[in-house]
Order: sequence, then C-alpha cells, then structure tokens
Amino acid sequence: MFGTTKAPILTIGVVGLGLIGGSMAKALKKYTNHRILGCDIDEATIREALSSRSIDQAAAPADLSGCEVVLFALYPQQTVQFVKEHLDCFRPGCILVDLCGVKRYTVDSLTGLCAEKGLTFIGGHPMAGKECWGFSGADAELYAGASMILTPDGRTPQAALYLLTVLFAAVGFSTITTATPAEHDSMIAFTSQLAHIVSSAYIKSPRAQQHAGFSAGSYKDLTRVAKLNPKMWTELFLENGDYLVEEIDEITRHLQEYREAIVTKDAPRLYQLLEDGRRKKEALQ
Amino acid sequence: MFGTTKAPILTIGVVGLGLIGGSMAKALKKYTNHRILGCDIDEATIREALSSRSIDQAAAPADLSGCEVVLFALYPQQTVQFVKEHLDCFRPGCILVDLCGVKRYTVDSLTGLCAEKGLTFIGGHPMAGKECWGFSGADAELYAGASMILTPDGRTPQAALYLLTVLFAAVGFSTITTATPAEHDSMIAFTSQLAHIVSSAYIKSPRAQQHAGFSAGSYKDLTRVAKLNPKMWTELFLENGDYLVEEIDEITRHLQEYREAIVTKDAPRLYQLLEDGRRKKEALQ
Repeated sequence: MFGTTKAPILTIGVVGLGLIGGSMAKALKKYTNHRILGCDIDEATIREALSSRSIDQAAAPADLSGCEVVLFALYPQQTVQFVKEHLDCFRPGCILVDLCGVKRYTVDSLTGLCAEKGLTFIGGHPMAGKECWGFSGADAELYAGASMILTPDGRTPQAALYLLTVLFAAVGFSTITTATPAEHDSMIAFTSQLAHIVSSAYIKSPRAQQHAGFSAGSYKDLTRVAKLNPKMWTELFLENGDYLVEEIDEITRHLQEYREAIVTKDAPRLYQLLEDGRRKKEALQ
Repeated sequence: MFGTTKAPILTIGVVGLGLIGGSMAKALKKYTNHRILGCDIDEATIREALSSRSIDQAAAPADLSGCEVVLFALYPQQTVQFVKEHLDCFRPGCILVDLCGVKRYTVDSLTGLCAEKGLTFIGGHPMAGKECWGFSGADAELYAGASMILTPDGRTPQAALYLLTVLFAAVGFSTITTATPAEHDSMIAFTSQLAHIVSSAYIKSPRAQQHAGFSAGSYKDLTRVAKLNPKMWTELFLENGDYLVEEIDEITRHLQEYREAIVTKDAPRLYQLLEDGRRKKEALQ
C-alpha cells in the first residue's frame, strides 16, 4: 500500500534577526512547519529568539549547510561580505535570498558568484517596515497583506521561484512582484527612499519645534518616517544615489512650480498644479 | 422656593454646511442641546441636513438675528463677503467665529467692522479634516480629540472666549489653542499647507504611475493629502503666500543638503543629516 505524502519540512536559515529577519523567523514559525535556524552576531538576540520560540535553533555560519533556503536580513554590504566569506557553507542547490532595500548592489555582487558554486541567489525586498528596528520590534504579522518583490533573472530556476512564491505567501505577503534589480531600485527610490528624505527634511523647519496644537493628520503623515535608522538608510541611499538624486531633483522641480505660482499670485496656474496632483492621486489610489 | 436652573439653550448658526460646517452642526446636535440653524446656498444640502437632523432649522441670512453664536464654514473670501453683506443681520453681542484655514485675512478684514456693530468676531481653525469635502462627508466625530485654534485679541471679551471654549470642548475638541492670527498663519504654513504642497508635488514623479507592488506605508503617507480640494487650497495658499513660500524654501534648502551628501558620497555627512532629523522627530513625537 502507498501512503499519502505531506509536503516535506524544509530547513530555512535566517541570517540577521533584526526587525526584518526577526519578523521573517517569527512568521515562518507561526505560519509554516519548517525548521528555522537563526544566525545573529548578538548573543542576547539569539537568546531572545530562542526563548520566544522565534527560531528552532541557533546557527553558526557552518550550520547553514543544512538549509534548503537561507534568507539574509543584513545591511547590503554585510550581506555581500557574509555570503562571500561563507560561500562554501551552503549546500549545492541552496536558494539564497537577500532582503535588502537595494537590489542592484547585492544581486550584481552575488548572483554570478553563487551560480559558480551551484547556488541560486535571488534578490528580495519585503515592502513592510516600522519606525523601529531590532529583534524587539519583530512581529509575525509584519508582512500580512504586504508586497514581496523578487528580482529573478533569465537563469533563475523556475522551481526556486515557485518555492519562494509559496513560502512568502505563507508568511502573509498578498502579492509577489517581480522586477529587474534596476527596476526595483528606480521604483524604490521614489516610493520609499524619497519619502524618508522628504520626511527628514520636513522636520527641520524651525516651526517644527512649536507645532503643538497646530498639527492635524497631514503633518503627522509627512514626518512619520523621519524616525529612521540613520546607519541603514545612509548605506541604502548611497548604494542607490543615481536614482534617488533623480527623484530629489524631480520633486524639487515641482515644488518650484508651486512656489512660482504663489509668488506671482497666479491663481489659475496654482489651481491647475493642485488639480493635476489631485487627479494623479485619485487615478492611483 | 427657588428652582434649579439648567444651562440655557443657545441658538447657534452654522453658515456653510460642507465637511467642516456640516460636521460642526452634526456634533453640536449630537453632543449639546442647543438649537442649530443651518445656512447654505445649496438647497439639496439644506434638505439633507434637515432630513438627517443635523440642523433644527434652515436659515436665511436674516434668520441669523436669532443666534447668540454664528460659525462660518465658508472659504475666506466668501466669509468676509457674507459678514460684510449681512452685518445688520446679527444681534448686538453675537459671537461670530470663522473656521477658515487662514486667520490674518479673515480676522484683519472683520474684527474691526464687527466691533463697530457691537459684535464679537473671533478667528477659529479646527485642526481636523478628511480627503473629501461637502456635506456628504460630514461626521459628528470629526473633531473628537482634535485641537481647536482660536485667535482672540486684547479686546476679545473673556466671557465670549469662555463660552466658545466650553462649546468646542463639548463637540469633542481635546485642546483649545490660542494664538495671534500671524502665529497661526506661520505655523499652519508648516504643519498643513506645506504638507499639501509636498504631497501634491510628490505624486508627480513619472514613477508614481508604476508604483503598484513597490509601495509600503511611507509612500502612502507622503501622498495621502495630494487628494485635496484644489479650489479651496488655491485660495488658502495665496492668502498665506508669504509664510508658505518661506516653508517651501526651507524644505528645498534641506533637500539640497541631502542631495549634496549623496552626490559627493559623503557618508558621515549624510548620516549626520539623517540622525539630526531622527532626533528632531523623536524629541517632538
């Protein structure tokens, strides 16, 4: 007689248990029955991850040889350095995914190197976050309803992409979006990086210090992400400087259009600028 | 024998039953037992306000002579025009409050004129809103927990200010903030007007059209108020152009600092700019 076969339990490594990696580990533990290995240089973080059952086992880099999938939730330069240093730790066929906020830098640095070793490297970027960082903010629900971006290329095995799609859907992502690394970096310069720059610039008006009683939702929205991790964003902005500067120049140019209409008291022009923005926002929602 | 005396029922006029005036009428009906007269040039709005019991009675301008308090929720120029045209409709001692988003224009235009007629004019600005307008969006809870700004001056009777403070607390405001019209206009240029300009400018990047799958909370926050009422904001921006241009120049200058640090790949400088923004935001929360 033949038995029924359940989907096998995978061993998944998560390297870096900060907000993003910690949330990934917690979500994998909560929503799948895979075995989760956690790797972090901070011993207190590892202890906390173990005691909260966010991971099944602490892993040294050499232990990652047991993994079918390894997720990297480090800064981009750390990711590239870690993978390069431990290339021999991964078993052939292993799928490596980085979760960094820029994709050209990590993908260009690692895809070829990994392929030579029989490993599949795919760039990923979970479109979710919080105004805090570190494992203490990690949350199994962080990815619920969010979009996961993956940057496979023509050589990416379809089976690996399929596996990741199922895995990320299981931890809560509602959409898997594929893009080239350049498409990702260009879009993210606009939707995320520029938002952080503008928010950080906004808060620097001298009026910010006296705003109590004068702020409704719009001020709060515009300045929320000014509370950012400056070390991480400094690296991300510099690794995506070309696209980001384009976006800074774009919004600066538009701000000058409104300024000019106000200075010249050109009501029809100002109305047109605002109406154009309103229509664009309504069309996108 | 003496009877106990309940606080008397006032007659309160609301002129303009859009989002702000309609919400004020609904909140006054829900949270006080005052008699509410509603005045609007749109007959369908009046019918809707009556049938939803948001007002007790439709009022022509002449009927406002029965009011102890009249709230004006019109655009600033309409407010000034309405009060000037109907100065003789108000009874001596009546308290007139405009709810416009700029205060120098209305207060400077009307305070003296009203005083000559024995009326008390006080500028007001409820710090609450929605991305819609008109009576259909009106909501008795719009002001719950919000701040109400009032701009009394040295001649404002304390009794009138006391009455308004109690009245606005009753409809849900958690804070009554007083300021001069110029202080208000300067602060509002930063907390509200600049937010709408930046949001409207943000959405105009060509990348906005392709952002599906690439946006997390930061993009949504930064562009939320781009869905604005262009007619109203054109007027408000032009009536506050001096302060608003200062704020546009301020944020533009800061954006250039980040740009410069990125172009020159100056990581310590970029870190410092971001850390400074983070500290400022954390200090304010």
